[in-house]
Amino acid sequence: MTYCVAVRVDQGLVMLSDTRTNAGMDNIARFRKSFTYLVEGERAITLLCSGNLSITQGVKATLSKAIKDAKLDPDIETILNCSTMHRVAQIVGDAMRAMQTRYRESIEMGGSGASASIMIAGQRRGGKPRLYLVYSAGNFIEATEDTPFFQIGEHKYGKPILDRIITRDTTLEDATKAVLVSMDSTLRSNLSVGMPLDLTVIPTDRFDFRVRTRIEADNEEFAMISQGWSAALRKGFEDLPNVLD
Amino acid sequence: MTYCVAVRVDQGLVMLSDTRTNAGMDNIARFRKSFTYLVEGERAITLLCSGNLSITQGVKATLSKAIKDAKLDPDIETILNCSTMHRVAQIVGDAMRAMQTRYRESIEMGGSGASASIMIAGQRRGGKPRLYLVYSAGNFIEATEDTPFFQIGEHKYGKPILDRIITRDTTLEDATKAVLVSMDSTLRSNLSVGMPLDLTVIPTDRFDFRVRTRIEADNEEFAMISQGWSAALRKGFEDLPNVLD
Repeated sequence: MTYCVAVRVDQGLVMLSDTRTNAGMDNIARFRKSFTYLVEGERAITLLCSGNLSITQGVKATLSKAIKDAKLDPDIETILNCSTMHRVAQIVGDAMRAMQTRYRESIEMGGSGASASIMIAGQRRGGKPRLYLVYSAGNFIEATEDTPFFQIGEHKYGKPILDRIITRDTTLEDATKAVLVSMDSTLRSNLSVGMPLDLTVIPTDRFDFRVRTRIEADNEEFAMISQGWSAALRKGFEDLPNVLD
Repeated sequence: MTYCVAVRVDQGLVMLSDTRTNAGMDNIARFRKSFTYLVEGERAITLLCSGNLSITQGVKATLSKAIKDAKLDPDIETILNCSTMHRVAQIVGDAMRAMQTRYRESIEMGGSGASASIMIAGQRRGGKPRLYLVYSAGNFIEATEDTPFFQIGEHKYGKPILDRIITRDTTLEDATKAVLVSMDSTLRSNLSVGMPLDLTVIPTDRFDFRVRTRIEADNEEFAMISQGWSAALRKGFEDLPNVLD
């Protein structure tokens, strides 16, 4: 399982992912699901991947190959030189569709699932911060003011806090706290979502990362969030009125 | 969809269910999912049903028929005269298996699901408070000290608060608050779970209900819980430390 969450507020973009993958309960490994791309001062992009790992790694390899090839032949279009974030989503979607066309049938014949999804968060100079969700078929949707966040993977445990907190006016600081609380609830309830975490923050019109860090299991700030939230829930619960006579 | 939750603590049993059923998003109705059985001073039992409605109604009809027939022939075994709560679970499980044997194949041929599950909470004089979960196959499990609550239906949104609060030492008052908070989180996040709610509380060694009530959408106490919890979460969130520099 996986839990990835991405938030788009007026002040920018916040992305958080776990690192646990599993093929059955007895086959658990750690893989990065968050990947960053930077052209300093021009564009900053984070991809968050979930679903069949061979598919999402294949998509990433396709994107990387194009970036490498474009160094020799600048006419090759890549997510680092294309004209818009919308075009980035199309390029990722095309790579996804190519991987699905190539492998889906044989993966499913083997009894596994080939589904995958990728979130794309970023901004390029001249455009606005954008957040897209690319599906297995290569089609995609964009986050809007009505739905300022996307989740992929094990989304239910961590959704209530996002529903309550996140609006377009939420500060980057609060959006970061909210995704950490959301992840904390998910970690507590689903064993197949696990530390460490990868956090990235892209402030609006900075075209760079403010945060691009791995949060390890012994991270003190995350422990403060986790314990503080536990204590707040317990205190809040105690303060609720008693409804039995 | 459905959300039912039942808790067994040392002080007794607390059960809560919603009343919304749906066959697709455009076919929503209200059905009671919580049913109580009382032999005053001897046993008190609550059943909570989820899954295919024709199956669970069929199980209930089977139980009721036996209770009616036993008035003429006391040798007929029913959930009201059988010797233990464990035997109650067997009787409910047998009725479930009979319904599944009769209808499952034809229901599934029609493209619908026949799965259903029923929670049984109660105590009879001479025994302890018991909580069982009966599956479609008629087999069942019992809540233990390690797992003092069961949920059926849309369980994820409402599970974190139960995980944090419920232990065998939890008071009936706190267990009741906890199931209401758990339901409130579920109502907010899943449209196919809806008011009104049915709440029952069976204190240990009382062999009667302390609470057996329907909570309507305009219930003031539930509104206080719901609003109080919202305010507590917001306050708790604001008080968390800021992790961005």
